[in-house]
Amino acid sequence: MNVEHINPFLSATVTVFRTMLKCELVRGQPFLKNGTQPPFDISGIIGLSGAAKGTVVLSLCRESALRAAEAMLGQAPSSIDADVRDAVGELTNMIAGSAKAKLEHLNLSVSLPSVITGKGHCIDFPRSITPVCIPFDCPWGMVAVEVGLGPA
Amino acid sequence: MNVEHINPFLSATVTVFRTMLKCELVRGQPFLKNGTQPPFDISGIIGLSGAAKGTVVLSLCRESALRAAEAMLGQAPSSIDADVRDAVGELTNMIAGSAKAKLEHLNLSVSLPSVITGKGHCIDFPRSITPVCIPFDCPWGMVAVEVGLGPA
Repeated sequence: MNVEHINPFLSATVTVFRTMLKCELVRGQPFLKNGTQPPFDISGIIGLSGAAKGTVVLSLCRESALRAAEAMLGQAPSSIDADVRDAVGELTNMIAGSAKAKLEHLNLSVSLPSVITGKGHCIDFPRSITPVCIPFDCPWGMVAVEVGLGPA
Repeated sequence: MNVEHINPFLSATVTVFRTMLKCELVRGQPFLKNGTQPPFDISGIIGLSGAAKGTVVLSLCRESALRAAEAMLGQAPSSIDADVRDAVGELTNMIAGSAKAKLEHLNLSVSLPSVITGKGHCIDFPRSITPVCIPFDCPWGMVAVEVGLGPA
């Protein structure tokens, strides 16, 4: 995957968390995902297509998801309910939309976000694609964005 | 969701299973998915965008996934491994591609398939979309396709 395609997703994530959630993310070291997966509790996923095809996944630990939903909705959910799932889907959508705007030459369009829950769920990309995982730390816990882009 | 948009996914699923896996699916009654989710073991997911935006999910029970992979690969996997995940992703890709060709007026493009594993995983669509679930039965066990399409 072209490293120049990573930065738009990285900066989109930081900006969306800052503006929508008033949450400052601290970026960890991006790495090529090789099968191992940190145990997140909830993930938003959205497809990209255009001059490249791909997928963006935003994964959050339980606490990060609950606090992010609280920041968006103004009240604290007590469990990962429909409000939290919608908040995570909307954040995923905003990150993909913001990155797409910065990758104008790829003429990307985004699909609908879906949200995956289930303790220990795994999301795998096609073997032909090695996604890049960008881990973030924030006061609420762990957040990660995975991006896989391949030829159209 | 427009009911005319369902049939292309239904017939694409039957055709892909018949031609790729030599497996005859028996269609159950499609229903609007309202939050409850049958407990599948593996799901392929792919995004659609164009004059509409959406997501297609192909879910299989463990036995169906193993046997589908065996039919594609020519040898029986013993667990849901990388080969099985790739087979499910490829089937999802073929179903979306075949349905897209039948929905020419929507000018859809498909993203990359991702594959979700984890016992009891749930996949939720945005609240603004009510996906249609098409259950199928086959000699191997349960298979279902969910489609959610909304305005672009």
